[in-house]
Amino acid sequence: MPHIDLDSAEPGIRGLLRYRPETGRPLSELAEVLLRGPSTLTRGERELIAAYVSALNDCRYCASAHSACAAAQLPGGMDLVEQVRADLGSAPVPGKLKALLNIAAAVCDSGHAVTAPHVDAARDAGATDLEIHDVVLIAAAFCMLNRYVDGLATVAPDDLAVYAAGARRLISAGYLMPPARPDPSG
Amino acid sequence: MPHIDLDSAEPGIRGLLRYRPETGRPLSELAEVLLRGPSTLTRGERELIAAYVSALNDCRYCASAHSACAAAQLPGGMDLVEQVRADLGSAPVPGKLKALLNIAAAVCDSGHAVTAPHVDAARDAGATDLEIHDVVLIAAAFCMLNRYVDGLATVAPDDLAVYAAGARRLISAGYLMPPARPDPSG
Repeated sequence: MPHIDLDSAEPGIRGLLRYRPETGRPLSELAEVLLRGPSTLTRGERELIAAYVSALNDCRYCASAHSACAAAQLPGGMDLVEQVRADLGSAPVPGKLKALLNIAAAVCDSGHAVTAPHVDAARDAGATDLEIHDVVLIAAAFCMLNRYVDGLATVAPDDLAVYAAGARRLISAGYLMPPARPDPSG
Repeated sequence: MPHIDLDSAEPGIRGLLRYRPETGRPLSELAEVLLRGPSTLTRGERELIAAYVSALNDCRYCASAHSACAAAQLPGGMDLVEQVRADLGSAPVPGKLKALLNIAAAVCDSGHAVTAPHVDAARDAGATDLEIHDVVLIAAAFCMLNRYVDGLATVAPDDLAVYAAGARRLISAGYLMPPARPDPSG
């Protein structure tokens, strides 16, 4: 049960965005730019980074939600997502993406854990400065979102079909919040 | 030296917001709502939470910047900020604020570290659901910002006068980014 009364049965981040739309709006915009905006990283690759970080932070809601989004947009599907989550070292992902996922894992520990060798490895594998920037910020943003979702003890459904349906909705409609409904009494 | 070429001598988060305005804009809006928007927590109290979390995360730039903002807006000034950072248990802050700072410290460890007793203690000391929500999100947001600033190895000035000047600017102008300058060649 959530620590506060969210006045909503919506699970995970969704109830929180609706509870406090003043913060929900910039949070949604940040997710939209980072995970779906113009980038040389595919949407599937960015969702995989979000899923991997959320799993490292043990956030069941975010890890399930973004694993479903990654699986639906990556050629390797859920098998690949599960291999990355189980053991990144042996997972069949290209060198650049693996180096970027290593940076993301370091960010989970601390900003100071991202070292020049991490960055050099990504650059040697072909990553650009902007890709390195975005991966650090995606990982950092999920260190926020995971703590927000679990710090208020929001509900995470057990049924994986809920996350698959959520992924279909996010892939077609994106992360931006709908505009506030007009007051029916107005 | 930063891990990537930011094309700017601006320290800490400032160079990052300018490097990538697409993400800088929602990040700035989130900071403005959380730290300066309408709230039953004072701006000084919210800056103190930001400073405390940043110090726990060992982010010198953010801890210095938000300590300066807190000191300028709290009756106890920098003495109080330093007491909280050195030993929250013995610092002379009201019970409600101390309970909220304890929640913020738990968020730094993990979302799962925020337990019902933390929340009950804050509520018993008079905190509302919205205050508890906002403190969890302020703490989580600084877990992101601290990792962003240090994960890209941005520069943190040694001179405390730089942070005091920054605080005066933030207190008068806020966190929102200025609109993009028109292209002078246009």
